[in-house]
Amino acid sequence: MRGIFITMEGPEGAGKTTITQMLGKALQQEGYQVLLTREPGGVPISEQIREVILNKDNTAMDSRTEALLYAAARRQHLVEVVMPELERGGIVLCDRFIDSSLAYQGHARGLDIEEVYNINKFAIGDMMPDATLFFDIDPEEGLRRIQSNGEREVNRLDLEALDFHKKVCEGYQFIINRWKERFIIVDAGRTIDEVFEQTKASLLDFLAKAGN
Amino acid sequence: MRGIFITMEGPEGAGKTTITQMLGKALQQEGYQVLLTREPGGVPISEQIREVILNKDNTAMDSRTEALLYAAARRQHLVEVVMPELERGGIVLCDRFIDSSLAYQGHARGLDIEEVYNINKFAIGDMMPDATLFFDIDPEEGLRRIQSNGEREVNRLDLEALDFHKKVCEGYQFIINRWKERFIIVDAGRTIDEVFEQTKASLLDFLAKAGN
Repeated sequence: MRGIFITMEGPEGAGKTTITQMLGKALQQEGYQVLLTREPGGVPISEQIREVILNKDNTAMDSRTEALLYAAARRQHLVEVVMPELERGGIVLCDRFIDSSLAYQGHARGLDIEEVYNINKFAIGDMMPDATLFFDIDPEEGLRRIQSNGEREVNRLDLEALDFHKKVCEGYQFIINRWKERFIIVDAGRTIDEVFEQTKASLLDFLAKAGN
Repeated sequence: MRGIFITMEGPEGAGKTTITQMLGKALQQEGYQVLLTREPGGVPISEQIREVILNKDNTAMDSRTEALLYAAARRQHLVEVVMPELERGGIVLCDRFIDSSLAYQGHARGLDIEEVYNINKFAIGDMMPDATLFFDIDPEEGLRRIQSNGEREVNRLDLEALDFHKKVCEGYQFIINRWKERFIIVDAGRTIDEVFEQTKASLLDFLAKAGN
């Protein structure tokens, strides 16, 4: 028996990470076996790859190099963390996965979504998510939220401007249209509590239908 | 005007690296503008990726992760070193390129050659080599030569046994049959001087036909 693989996607500033943590706890309280993770997820090889991607000195990095590195880090995290938990029959909630690469590298950085999809298919094989929660937010509102949140260290990706942020959202729209049946759309423009209640209800509904 | 892109391939112990250096000098003496390189070629991003690949502590590395990392390092070296030289109209001699990934990761590590070819096509685009010298040697003779040469540090790849070495040679045979027109086969079982003279003659002939 294989568990259930659920991914969380959306632009930065949509509250995705906060809500994912709340959902993890809520599902555990309902008696589900849940693993909360995000790439690189403490996997040393993926952490090392991530360091290369986010190193501010690596300004010469080509977009295709970057896309291949994300796919490599994804593969290793999948093999070491996600797949073993699914084999134990658990539920995996993963904060960002293949769709982030399609939206960020595939669309926003001007590569081709199909080409980036192909290298990611090489990385993940048949481990596509069973469901994906998409945290939908207006790009300008998302960016305002990021900028008012100075808690984490600014990295290379944060240095991108609103134009890039808008392109990410465009990319996600394309992906959602292409893989409709997998997506659960969440209106992330409301309060944390409202978003949490909606996503919790949607997830429990999905899990009930999936027979868990 | 684009220059000429030539790659050197073969199993370890075939004398490929030594001969490539001799060829570089010989072509320069004939008046050609030649750049000798090999991945990661001093490109910091590719060097960082290479460190992750060859790190002996990374025993958990999945074959697909490894193949994606090689493709990423290849892309960056191509963009920063090979393409600028070809744009200047020069000849680039590159010690190992896409075929090494097809033979090592694609065949010897049990992945699919076509799948590994696809991620490498993503990495190199239309920059396939104009010609590839293949240093053909019996696997057992190749391994004997590696073992009697204790000069360089032993890395993770050297720890593989003769079976692996044989699979690499099998992989190369498949690749040569598939992309026949690109390959110049060199009998690398002879002395260094003999191999050098043959490859030099073959290369000069190829360059003359290519109109250089």
